Amino acid sequence: MNQSFENHFAHVCEHARQSAILQSVADALEWDERTGMPHDASDYRAVQVSTLRAMHHKQQTDAAYGERLQQLFGDLPQTEHSDDPHGDVACTIVGLHRDYQRNCKLPVDLVRQTSEATVRGQQVWDLARKANDFAAFAPALKQIIALKREAGSLLSEGGDPYQALIDEYEPGADVDALRGVFESLREPLIQLVARLKDAPRQPDVSLLQRAFPIEGQRRLSRIVAETIGFDFNRGRLDETSHPFCTNLGPNDCRILTRYDSHWLPAGLFGTMHEAGHGMYDQGLRTDWYGLPPGSYVSLGIHESQSRLWENQVGRSLPFWKWLLPKAKACFGGVLDDCTPEMIHFAVNAVRPSLIRVEADEATYNLHIIIRFELEQALMSGALQVHDLPGAWDDAYERYLGVSSPTAANGVLQDVHWSAGLFGYFPTYTLGNLAAAQFFDSAKTDLGSLDESIEQGNFANLLEWLRQHVHRHGRCFTGGELVEKATNSKLSAEPLLTSLRSRYQDLYGGA
Amino acid sequence: MNQSFENHFAHVCEHARQSAILQSVADALEWDERTGMPHDASDYRAVQVSTLRAMHHKQQTDAAYGERLQQLFGDLPQTEHSDDPHGDVACTIVGLHRDYQRNCKLPVDLVRQTSEATVRGQQVWDLARKANDFAAFAPALKQIIALKREAGSLLSEGGDPYQALIDEYEPGADVDALRGVFESLREPLIQLVARLKDAPRQPDVSLLQRAFPIEGQRRLSRIVAETIGFDFNRGRLDETSHPFCTNLGPNDCRILTRYDSHWLPAGLFGTMHEAGHGMYDQGLRTDWYGLPPGSYVSLGIHESQSRLWENQVGRSLPFWKWLLPKAKACFGGVLDDCTPEMIHFAVNAVRPSLIRVEADEATYNLHIIIRFELEQALMSGALQVHDLPGAWDDAYERYLGVSSPTAANGVLQDVHWSAGLFGYFPTYTLGNLAAAQFFDSAKTDLGSLDESIEQGNFANLLEWLRQHVHRHGRCFTGGELVEKATNSKLSAEPLLTSLRSRYQDLYGGA
Repeated sequence: MNQSFENHFAHVCEHARQSAILQSVADALEWDERTGMPHDASDYRAVQVSTLRAMHHKQQTDAAYGERLQQLFGDLPQTEHSDDPHGDVACTIVGLHRDYQRNCKLPVDLVRQTSEATVRGQQVWDLARKANDFAAFAPALKQIIALKREAGSLLSEGGDPYQALIDEYEPGADVDALRGVFESLREPLIQLVARLKDAPRQPDVSLLQRAFPIEGQRRLSRIVAETIGFDFNRGRLDETSHPFCTNLGPNDCRILTRYDSHWLPAGLFGTMHEAGHGMYDQGLRTDWYGLPPGSYVSLGIHESQSRLWENQVGRSLPFWKWLLPKAKACFGGVLDDCTPEMIHFAVNAVRPSLIRVEADEATYNLHIIIRFELEQALMSGALQVHDLPGAWDDAYERYLGVSSPTAANGVLQDVHWSAGLFGYFPTYTLGNLAAAQFFDSAKTDLGSLDESIEQGNFANLLEWLRQHVHRHGRCFTGGELVEKATNSKLSAEPLLTSLRSRYQDLYGGA
Repeated sequence: MNQSFENHFAHVCEHARQSAILQSVADALEWDERTGMPHDASDYRAVQVSTLRAMHHKQQTDAAYGERLQQLFGDLPQTEHSDDPHGDVACTIVGLHRDYQRNCKLPVDLVRQTSEATVRGQQVWDLARKANDFAAFAPALKQIIALKREAGSLLSEGGDPYQALIDEYEPGADVDALRGVFESLREPLIQLVARLKDAPRQPDVSLLQRAFPIEGQRRLSRIVAETIGFDFNRGRLDETSHPFCTNLGPNDCRILTRYDSHWLPAGLFGTMHEAGHGMYDQGLRTDWYGLPPGSYVSLGIHESQSRLWENQVGRSLPFWKWLLPKAKACFGGVLDDCTPEMIHFAVNAVRPSLIRVEADEATYNLHIIIRFELEQALMSGALQVHDLPGAWDDAYERYLGVSSPTAANGVLQDVHWSAGLFGYFPTYTLGNLAAAQFFDSAKTDLGSLDESIEQGNFANLLEWLRQHVHRHGRCFTGGELVEKATNSKLSAEPLLTSLRSRYQDLYGGA
């Protein structure tokens, strides 16, 4: 039996690796599409990508592959691999088995309907947003919610659909626990943000709105990405309108940023954010590429890596003590009158605003909590689509004290729901929470990081992340990983403490 | 039967289109590999590309597909499509049937051995060239020649192996006819080149060796490519170390050039050359993409399009009357003392030299003729590999009057033979010959082109090429296409006349 176990295991791994090749090729085409593909090439590009995705899906749901997986999954408890449930072999079998089951639970018809509804949904959403007309989007949204609810029911086998949907992005996450954490974050955050409005000191944000030539921003971004540890032999940095990070192979990570000549944080923190994602991908074990031990664990943990570098490192004073001389050199005089302290305060400005993607580190999570609460209500039926705009405006008024004069800048601002991404939003805040918690533990383990960061030495921090997060792949769930690395369950405290202490120093009072 | 014919035809076309998708995706990965892929990504990229190529080959040699093709091929004479052997339907069936037969004629083992031998061959060649050591390359070359000879014998079913190998790149070409044309070119060219050496006037090539900032060269190249008609909505221009042109879909043509800050012709003519290839690809009928009526006819005809724009247009006086003011604007003062006549003479400098890829328009063809003659002798066995260096040096001495002190700059200079590309070289000169012949006919049909070129109007010339070359795809052979467009068979005369007349004006005497 052992012989046959090993044999099945090798077959299954080879099948999954083959399927990862197709996926990585489709990803490569999408990277090209978003970096510089000629305008008129888009129709055929869609054909190329959908052909590869279809071949990939066929491999993923192949019956013989499924049988082998089922056999392995059944035999696993009788092997020595069951002694170590987080070992590579057990993790591979359990992970691939889970993926296969999930892939097969959804009928082809439902997958097709959802795909069509979300492609159309995004087009309708785009037009509705431009026309500032929620009613034009409502029917499409209703249909998408119904389809996602059906998918959630099938995946959870009659349980909570939303739980099953979250599980897609955050495998193993428990919605009730998540709700608890988000609730413990909400009120303190609302109060913190409100207090800062009337604080005795206020930042001078205009420092960041000066003229920063793009060429200088490119140089600065490259310096930062390289110095914090993004490996340019195994990746590259490009520009695009909607920044992202994608992995085209075990040694081919592409990050993309966007520069605004009059808003320095866009390009700089955008680069640090994507480099954080990229360094996670680069820290996965290449010999397990395409298999669970070499795959990222969840969107929340992926986001924790980007947020850690962007916020915990990039918005710290030691970081600006290191970076400012370099920034001055890139912008010939533009920042010469600034001190690290002035920039540090400016990049930590907190101002309630309407648009999520432009929000600061503190209010950002309130934007997410609003969406998390609303999408649960939509999914359970407690909130009807036609009542969504009112509920949205109401929540913004209550949590952030702002109200949008237009649906375009309100309920229609995000593409996610039109694309069927229910359960996706909370992973952003999960990332912020885990980032603060990881950073705290790294500081505890490594001693204060201030000195090394001020010297531009980020190797110890990156190595800590490699050891505690990256190299584990999917061998633990996101929640297990946090607990293992930080000795406590995910909680709102580290983030709240980090924000409070930073803002206390900067804004005074409170 | 008609019903079943139409049905088979639709199936076969769909199969070929699917197979073109895989090919185009592999090409996209190779474009990325040559433009900016991270260094360490190369191993996995090879896996991705070979996976796609293997899937493509499997589709191309699928038995059921072959049976349908055989059926169609047999039925064709009984249908109305046989009335028009150059019509789209007949051309599709005949073309795909030919490709299928060719693909199936070579045993899998031979294909694999050849692939391994040429991958290794290129590595060995690279090392041998660096070490300036032909003997180190000789055993690999011997093996490759044996394998290609075997392939040629199988493909020609016992006939002339070299004829079958040429047929890969120049379908339908007749080696004897080709030999005749090349021979009628050789002696007049040798005499022409020799005469120019002692001509009363000589060009000042140093004009082109001034400092030309890369940024200005980029602007100039873009202006030229755009103005001659390369469509940037359906393509893009990038940089690479070995310029090329590739087509990633019906509306996605990528051209690549290379700039030398002290040699203007490299980037400028490189761009015109690749844009010429690109405009051919962009002139193919998109609704037949992936099928013979929408495919390029041969390497020689493809090359004729690049050479026509590079040499017939780009090295003409009217062109420089148009371009020079623009070039001056791109290089702030560097060319201010130049007249169009001075640049025109400089870009038409003829100097026998050792390296093919750096050769001028006249001597270039002598480099090719040498390779054409030597590879026939190697293939027939008249020349043994260990005698190749001597034969090479001897030919260079006789045809060009130069001799290389090193094998690296002599017999080891080209990668082609190490990659198994026998029969490929002659397509370069075929391209030069056809370019001159097409250009002559275009001038006859459109009246002198001097005036429109001087005004920067290239639309009439491009339209002539679209009508006479591009839109026919593979519905004619290269030879038929030349004859149809120019009312005479391919001959050396138009090129010789073009060169003689241009050099007579410039060099005087003779």
